[in-house]
Amino acid sequence: MRFEEDAFGKVELPEGALYGIQTLRSVENMSFSGRKLNAYPEYISSLADVKKAAARANERAGILPRSVSQAIEQACEEVEQGCHNEHFIVDPYHGGGCIGSNMNMNEVVANLANELLGGEWGEYNPVHPNDHVNASQSTSDACHTALRISIVRVSAALEAELELLANALESKSRAFAGVRTITRTCLQDGMQDSLGTLFAGYEHGIRRRLRGLSQATLALTAVNLGGTVIGSGVGAAPAYREQIIGALNEVTGLSLIHRENLYDASMNMDDVAAVSSELQLLSGLLIKLAKDFRLLSSGPEAGFGELKLPAVQAGSSFFPGKINPVVPETLIQCCFQVIGLDRSVQASLEHGELNLNVWEGLAGFNVLDSLNMLRRAVSLFTDKCVKGTEANEERCEKLSRCFIPVVVELKEKYGYSQVSRWLKNESKDEIRKRYESEAD
Amino acid sequence: MRFEEDAFGKVELPEGALYGIQTLRSVENMSFSGRKLNAYPEYISSLADVKKAAARANERAGILPRSVSQAIEQACEEVEQGCHNEHFIVDPYHGGGCIGSNMNMNEVVANLANELLGGEWGEYNPVHPNDHVNASQSTSDACHTALRISIVRVSAALEAELELLANALESKSRAFAGVRTITRTCLQDGMQDSLGTLFAGYEHGIRRRLRGLSQATLALTAVNLGGTVIGSGVGAAPAYREQIIGALNEVTGLSLIHRENLYDASMNMDDVAAVSSELQLLSGLLIKLAKDFRLLSSGPEAGFGELKLPAVQAGSSFFPGKINPVVPETLIQCCFQVIGLDRSVQASLEHGELNLNVWEGLAGFNVLDSLNMLRRAVSLFTDKCVKGTEANEERCEKLSRCFIPVVVELKEKYGYSQVSRWLKNESKDEIRKRYESEAD
Amino acid sequence: MRFEEDAFGKVELPEGALYGIQTLRSVENMSFSGRKLNAYPEYISSLADVKKAAARANERAGILPRSVSQAIEQACEEVEQGCHNEHFIVDPYHGGGCIGSNMNMNEVVANLANELLGGEWGEYNPVHPNDHVNASQSTSDACHTALRISIVRVSAALEAELELLANALESKSRAFAGVRTITRTCLQDGMQDSLGTLFAGYEHGIRRRLRGLSQATLALTAVNLGGTVIGSGVGAAPAYREQIIGALNEVTGLSLIHRENLYDASMNMDDVAAVSSELQLLSGLLIKLAKDFRLLSSGPEAGFGELKLPAVQAGSSFFPGKINPVVPETLIQCCFQVIGLDRSVQASLEHGELNLNVWEGLAGFNVLDSLNMLRRAVSLFTDKCVKGTEANEERCEKLSRCFIPVVVELKEKYGYSQVSRWLKNESKDEIRKRYESEAD
Amino acid sequence: MRFEEDAFGKVELPEGALYGIQTLRSVENMSFSGRKLNAYPEYISSLADVKKAAARANERAGILPRSVSQAIEQACEEVEQGCHNEHFIVDPYHGGGCIGSNMNMNEVVANLANELLGGEWGEYNPVHPNDHVNASQSTSDACHTALRISIVRVSAALEAELELLANALESKSRAFAGVRTITRTCLQDGMQDSLGTLFAGYEHGIRRRLRGLSQATLALTAVNLGGTVIGSGVGAAPAYREQIIGALNEVTGLSLIHRENLYDASMNMDDVAAVSSELQLLSGLLIKLAKDFRLLSSGPEAGFGELKLPAVQAGSSFFPGKINPVVPETLIQCCFQVIGLDRSVQASLEHGELNLNVWEGLAGFNVLDSLNMLRRAVSLFTDKCVKGTEANEERCEKLSRCFIPVVVELKEKYGYSQVSRWLKNESKDEIRKRYESEAD
Repeated sequence: MRFEEDAFGKVELPEGALYGIQTLRSVENMSFSGRKLNAYPEYISSLADVKKAAARANERAGILPRSVSQAIEQACEEVEQGCHNEHFIVDPYHGGGCIGSNMNMNEVVANLANELLGGEWGEYNPVHPNDHVNASQSTSDACHTALRISIVRVSAALEAELELLANALESKSRAFAGVRTITRTCLQDGMQDSLGTLFAGYEHGIRRRLRGLSQATLALTAVNLGGTVIGSGVGAAPAYREQIIGALNEVTGLSLIHRENLYDASMNMDDVAAVSSELQLLSGLLIKLAKDFRLLSSGPEAGFGELKLPAVQAGSSFFPGKINPVVPETLIQCCFQVIGLDRSVQASLEHGELNLNVWEGLAGFNVLDSLNMLRRAVSLFTDKCVKGTEANEERCEKLSRCFIPVVVELKEKYGYSQVSRWLKNESKDEIRKRYESEAD
Repeated sequence: MRFEEDAFGKVELPEGALYGIQTLRSVENMSFSGRKLNAYPEYISSLADVKKAAARANERAGILPRSVSQAIEQACEEVEQGCHNEHFIVDPYHGGGCIGSNMNMNEVVANLANELLGGEWGEYNPVHPNDHVNASQSTSDACHTALRISIVRVSAALEAELELLANALESKSRAFAGVRTITRTCLQDGMQDSLGTLFAGYEHGIRRRLRGLSQATLALTAVNLGGTVIGSGVGAAPAYREQIIGALNEVTGLSLIHRENLYDASMNMDDVAAVSSELQLLSGLLIKLAKDFRLLSSGPEAGFGELKLPAVQAGSSFFPGKINPVVPETLIQCCFQVIGLDRSVQASLEHGELNLNVWEGLAGFNVLDSLNMLRRAVSLFTDKCVKGTEANEERCEKLSRCFIPVVVELKEKYGYSQVSRWLKNESKDEIRKRYESEAD
Repeated sequence: MRFEEDAFGKVELPEGALYGIQTLRSVENMSFSGRKLNAYPEYISSLADVKKAAARANERAGILPRSVSQAIEQACEEVEQGCHNEHFIVDPYHGGGCIGSNMNMNEVVANLANELLGGEWGEYNPVHPNDHVNASQSTSDACHTALRISIVRVSAALEAELELLANALESKSRAFAGVRTITRTCLQDGMQDSLGTLFAGYEHGIRRRLRGLSQATLALTAVNLGGTVIGSGVGAAPAYREQIIGALNEVTGLSLIHRENLYDASMNMDDVAAVSSELQLLSGLLIKLAKDFRLLSSGPEAGFGELKLPAVQAGSSFFPGKINPVVPETLIQCCFQVIGLDRSVQASLEHGELNLNVWEGLAGFNVLDSLNMLRRAVSLFTDKCVKGTEANEERCEKLSRCFIPVVVELKEKYGYSQVSRWLKNESKDEIRKRYESEAD
Repeated sequence: MRFEEDAFGKVELPEGALYGIQTLRSVENMSFSGRKLNAYPEYISSLADVKKAAARANERAGILPRSVSQAIEQACEEVEQGCHNEHFIVDPYHGGGCIGSNMNMNEVVANLANELLGGEWGEYNPVHPNDHVNASQSTSDACHTALRISIVRVSAALEAELELLANALESKSRAFAGVRTITRTCLQDGMQDSLGTLFAGYEHGIRRRLRGLSQATLALTAVNLGGTVIGSGVGAAPAYREQIIGALNEVTGLSLIHRENLYDASMNMDDVAAVSSELQLLSGLLIKLAKDFRLLSSGPEAGFGELKLPAVQAGSSFFPGKINPVVPETLIQCCFQVIGLDRSVQASLEHGELNLNVWEGLAGFNVLDSLNMLRRAVSLFTDKCVKGTEANEERCEKLSRCFIPVVVELKEKYGYSQVSRWLKNESKDEIRKRYESEAD
């Protein structure tokens, strides 16, 4: 147990708390979601990277002494590796434009750094959370940058899963190339075609949205660290500003650049919202894909029955032997959730105002959630559903010889109006005979 | 051609224009939607009712001389009857909190009233748009009230259509009571049941949402006329405020009351948004209903094929003889549109501020659009689809004897785990035999 | 460590696992959100209540022997009290229409009940998860009912917080009754009025939405337990169906009733979506309220400055002494999140199909999240912001004597067009003098 | 008056109707929106271009005789030029996957072509709507392609307006470069900065979204004409398929290409939805921009008062002399509407199924509406608001000397914790003195 004090009074911190008074106030004043910042380890490590890079750039710019910057760097490395996640306890959705997240990091790093330098937790000497860990930064630019780094990293994992899904669909497309079946528009029987073409269509759709996501994420590699609160850079010395992106790239291994205009970066978060829009579009396609899988495997007797999905578990507590498409349904529900989170992101964007969009953090955590959820749900869908899906060849063959495909082939030869006349005046059987005599 | 002038300069009005300079400025400054106010005749007549009631209450309160109020009342009656719709030309979605709509009405009524009194258009004497037609009102309370009256009226028409739809579904429920068919969960074969029960489920859902809509609309009969701009009533004499609701009820034939708190009425438009939410919920159910119709009539050979929808037109420019479920699809698209309009209403609600929600007009016109579109689409769906829908009894009978229903009946007798064992160790045919021997 | 087996093979369960193979399969096949069912303790206890009531009704109907039903009841009580929450590990957002949640409960209760009866975990004898714990139920009706019970319970907590917020606003309304200030429309200066009236408007809005929420929640007390999968009640004996609601009311202390039509109940979840819509409407009002607080307290020097919000923590890592409205911002972000969750609920509703809406669980957990988040954020806002908010009386007094209020008072006496003429031809000072000489 | 007949019976067409029976049936069965196709002249001319190009390619492929193709081409040219818009009467939002729009065009063109060849309207000889005008096409590929062409064309007009807006903001940024003012975060006073930097931020945001829109629109230049219904090209001869894109580029003057996979093109419309997402993102930024204009011009006395917007009309029917920011508000309302239309587009995307997304038309018309509305509203905002906006230099100067900017400058020199101590222990006046003595 220890005590800390600020302009608002004195507080008691629990024993072993690496965080300090600002963190505690944020927890007390702004927690509502039931979640803690440590639900987002990628964000914590990205923010630690920002602090580490800032310490390095501050030292190079002569703002921090080497001893302090090295202690901060070392502390950040521990945090990066997830060693202190239990001390990141602010509600990630708190108001105030991410002040709580930034101070939680500043305090944890300051305490760790002071400890490394032989000091005590809570004394903030020689390393102070604001004066040293946060030196040359504001919450605005530090959290903006950390958010983008974490999205870039998590998106890469989803992109890899989408690649695997597209590959699995492509592979099925080849496997089903020889399976003739019916196609449908408006759910009504259409012409016959290869089942493989349907899967080729799926594959191309997923690959396009994968490209869209990659492009949207790439835009996030332009960040505003050095812009401080509103993009002016007041509070960050020119020497620091020259060093910071280089230091950040050393620390993260990424190829980050400065945004073209840092004022724009502080006030507009449409780059993050654009990633969310991409996830909404992707979700639209995935819902369609998963619903198609359900529909094409409907039955086994009373449905379409063209696909056989792998059975992974009992489908019902009530019907013995009933197998439900639980994996596609899981993907669908994930997508519903992603689309909802995009709605929150839209609100964050619309309600921005003046020099700083203070809602950006909410948007960013929603994007991180969506990326992580999709990554897992897409992986399940690929592995537990797509890969094991088989064509019901007998059923497909039978459906491909329905009446409407016959009509289409006759129309190819005789034209729309001639065939319409036959349809009006002849029985189905007569028309089918006409077709079969053609075929001879 | 005539000229009018205000603090911003002189303008030329087209010949025959009943409106005046304020209308013209609104058109020039704020038109973007490609629509005009006269796309909403119910709103125009409701706003005319408000002006008429205000004239009457102003006269009773001694604020307007009888000659003026009578001329205004007579002018309003002409407008109400739709005689001058071509002069309502402001963009209904204009900014400024409905100022354009209100001034368009004030000017048209003033010109008509002056004409009745022997005056010239554009002279606004003895009847002035602001001093007399708008007497004791502001845009805020006049348009708030007119909006609610028009929604109440248009909603009644939709409610009547929903009643007819529910009746048609109930009638089908009875007609299909004897048709045994398969049911499905997760699109997989489930137990057998009567087709009629499905339609009873549809009917009850629609009736519930009809009740929800009625309740939400009823709340709009509480209005704020007399509250002027922000609910304080400044600018409206006490004598007028006592008379206005009575006069409004005389004019409209409705049973309107004053809102409990008029400040609340000016700043919050959640009562309108609640109607929009009801339409979104209704749309959710209608989408489900119409999609079920499509799915259950899918085929004719390669689909579920339990329902036969009435054919209303050729379904394809390509496939002769293809009949598509175009009427259910029309309803679905209408619902997509309604759900989108609700999204705009949500924005209007969220972005309200301080003493007056200036976005209310947009929300209201969206609700009117939704009501009118749903009224027409529901009517088409009832008349051109539901009423003529038939069960494919042969197909239903066959599906009701699928394997899963058999399993369910065995489970009823022997329990889930016993039947699971049989399913593991015996062939379908053996199990079916077991069932048939039971049935003997 | 122990092993269990089903038709899909054998699995190894971790030591001490109260759940069984179906739970494990659900976890493996359908986890993506990073959350577990035990994030929803109210849902777990409500589902335990359902199982307990079902055991009781099954015993009364002669379906379960007393020993079994009593063991189940006792097991359920332990679960209800939260003693075994760590064993509820399925992803709450899993697909398959809640099968995982139901089986997780069935297995935990079966193991506990068998233990009470001297059996071993995993043997499911004499108490079997499906045959006994789930007796006369399906996932569909058990989870439907548990969801509604939990929403009813959690909503009551939010409703209590809203009542406190409304009371606090009412109290401020009285406290500020004597403070004259400016009002605004379109953010432009309007007439003067009492600051108290603004708060009265807020209060009335909140009370209305509280009533809306209560009504929407009340509708959830109609449930479908006894309807089994699709509402037909197949699998539930008539004697059980007569007992079940009575037993459920004994167990829960609520006044639940049967839905009018149980088929409707299985296929349509608009009753849950209606609660979500209410939360979206409420959020719209809360956003407006919290944004008004921010705007009216903007400054301290360069803003509106009419309100002084209580300072609760340092507002910035950068600006010493800057106090930000972090509590209103927290509420706003909570509302953005709720609005997003409503978007997911909309998708769940729209995508329902045929005899059972399998997406209902997702919708329900989103509603629970929204209720819980709003409960906490509203409580913070009331206690840490509204209650301590003060009027900046000096500033308000000054603003109330701006020019536009002066114009309004002159207009009251001389009419709109006369005052417009003065405005065109005279200086502000001259007009103000005219006003002051009036006042003498 | 004339009669036409199809498999569903005989109908009477109004005198002078260039359209035929299929159009009439579509109108009767599927109208609900109150709009007609001719509200979208760009779509009509784009679809006419498709028909013209198809006729040309059909002729080159030897499918249509030269006389027929030339008559069709000539008829299409008349339609393109808008000569027959009054005959395009189907509801643009009708179901059935655009069948009505396609047949409306096929019939009008067939009648015009027959007339050119000396035939009668309604006889469809020698030119038949399906066999000749629609030759080698289906509704699916013809309308898909026309939709994309029309969006490409209309988007170009919006893009031009956005360029003008960005230029106007850039110009203001330069004009206000020398104006010092306050900045704000969380609506609380922040550091001082140049007013010009804020406008530079606006400009960069708009230019980024302009680039995003251009990229999204560019993707629509890949079309599927030749793929017929589901992308297989059945019904379109290889010779035609080789010619069609070339012919289309001749006719349109665009640089269209074939989609990589035509099956994908039929089933997925995420390329259109991506344009809609871009418009939603753009709207988010425009709302923020327009709301900033309102806030920064709030007052004149009781608000922020840093900007003076050009007055364009009387702002109130109640307050003489009140000028409201009606033009920014108009833009905001336009954006609310666009965001709502995007919600409908999302539904169209999510609900796609199997081989063809039949909801694409709805999505496309919503995008066209959004593009047209934004084009007009942005143009008004640029011309009637941004260009005439002035800084209130005196007010800005005063605000830039508030207390918080002083604190920031002291902190730059003495650090966060030192200044926090002063803030705790000294009066504002003392701190300001410290600052002023520094400045000497």
